[in-house]
Amino acid sequence: MEKIPFVAETSFHVRYAETDAMGIVHHAAYIVYFEEGRSHYMRERGSSYAEFEKGGQYMAVTEVHARYVRAARYDQKIRIRCWVEQIRSRGLTFQYELADYDTGDLLVTGTSKHICLDKEGHVIKFPAEWQAWLVG
Amino acid sequence: MEKIPFVAETSFHVRYAETDAMGIVHHAAYIVYFEEGRSHYMRERGSSYAEFEKGGQYMAVTEVHARYVRAARYDQKIRIRCWVEQIRSRGLTFQYELADYDTGDLLVTGTSKHICLDKEGHVIKFPAEWQAWLVG
Amino acid sequence: MEKIPFVAETSFHVRYAETDAMGIVHHAAYIVYFEEGRSHYMRERGSSYAEFEKGGQYMAVTEVHARYVRAARYDQKIRIRCWVEQIRSRGLTFQYELADYDTGDLLVTGTSKHICLDKEGHVIKFPAEWQAWLVG
Amino acid sequence: MEKIPFVAETSFHVRYAETDAMGIVHHAAYIVYFEEGRSHYMRERGSSYAEFEKGGQYMAVTEVHARYVRAARYDQKIRIRCWVEQIRSRGLTFQYELADYDTGDLLVTGTSKHICLDKEGHVIKFPAEWQAWLVG
Repeated sequence: MEKIPFVAETSFHVRYAETDAMGIVHHAAYIVYFEEGRSHYMRERGSSYAEFEKGGQYMAVTEVHARYVRAARYDQKIRIRCWVEQIRSRGLTFQYELADYDTGDLLVTGTSKHICLDKEGHVIKFPAEWQAWLVG
Repeated sequence: MEKIPFVAETSFHVRYAETDAMGIVHHAAYIVYFEEGRSHYMRERGSSYAEFEKGGQYMAVTEVHARYVRAARYDQKIRIRCWVEQIRSRGLTFQYELADYDTGDLLVTGTSKHICLDKEGHVIKFPAEWQAWLVG
Repeated sequence: MEKIPFVAETSFHVRYAETDAMGIVHHAAYIVYFEEGRSHYMRERGSSYAEFEKGGQYMAVTEVHARYVRAARYDQKIRIRCWVEQIRSRGLTFQYELADYDTGDLLVTGTSKHICLDKEGHVIKFPAEWQAWLVG
Repeated sequence: MEKIPFVAETSFHVRYAETDAMGIVHHAAYIVYFEEGRSHYMRERGSSYAEFEKGGQYMAVTEVHARYVRAARYDQKIRIRCWVEQIRSRGLTFQYELADYDTGDLLVTGTSKHICLDKEGHVIKFPAEWQAWLVG
């Protein structure tokens, strides 16, 4: 039986700087929103990615994918849900779901894939304590 | 006797995308933070700049000034205070103060000046009801 | 026999604001680089996306995918190649390849999918003259 | 008699991501354009700020000021001029002038002030060789 993942949820208002001349949120801004969801996920798990880096390890992004369903606009309140889709010793996949905070209308879905690097930029295994921390 | 201005206060975490290779928040990101403070100010006054635009008027930025006191870092919780420093029929000045949310240490101060434009881009007077709304 | 696509190539230096605390270009910045490649593609075809919008139509992004191979750093000169992978009456896919300008080392690859919208936001067919213009 | 400063000039097209819902370049984007002008200034002087950082020193921004004269739009070709307004042992001021590349119409002017930091973040004097390099 598959374990139900921990889902972190946060919300925020669209900033004007994130809109573009089409009057909607620029598609690259959602990649930053994904990151916000990921940061929040880690805070919710009791730590911060900042702590992660202090240990001399880094999470590098190897892939990102976004599917745009509905446009968001300035000042719109957006809800983002983020969870770990898959974790292996050498790879971690986060999944994202952005929706309008009030109506629940789906806006954007996406995933990001990550590897763990040491200070010299070499790929290393995700430390066991992090694997436990992230999804345990 | 000078009237004590209405001060809007909000807080948020620094996003990773807002940091730069110096390990700190990039100085241009604070201009976006100012805008966030301004947007929050309007929400606190009971409306939104989005409503403003729906009326066919725009607030254009004519000047911005920032003074950087302390650097902020990824995931740091920041508090921003925003208030109207001056409002005249043809000009509006917002003032900003960013500080660490926990310690209150001052990070950045700044101002932005604005004019009101119609749809054709002509400078018009700030409608009286907005003057009242913004600072009344 | 498959037609060899028109490939637009341009280059630019990484801006400091595009780096992050890891000392490398933030992964969301590449989505903006893709767009720069796309804009350049259109200029090379003899027009501009700005003209496209003046006609009252918009190209909305429905999907974006990026695969990160090597990190880029501040001031690095980057070469981007962009071409149309597929064009249909209701869908357009651009492909991107970013590499170091001097060494040719591959940095990032990606795709973006687009639909055509009218002013009211309804999906319409890509006008035939654009299909011709983009890939003819 | 005042020495005529070295002026570095470069140009680029406005990116779509830099526009906002008002249809014009977002005011914070110009702060990044200033930086682009500054980076280009250093390249023109024969080095790069990247080299500067490799030496273990950093140029921190202490103040930025921008005055917005005319709005720029997507795909507009912009010319930026940058020069050193003042250099002292503990402070450096750059000045910027952005204009439309074709018409020369002034868009934005501004300044940025900088100090020199060591790796620990302490303010140090600008090394003499840099003073010479920047304005000599």
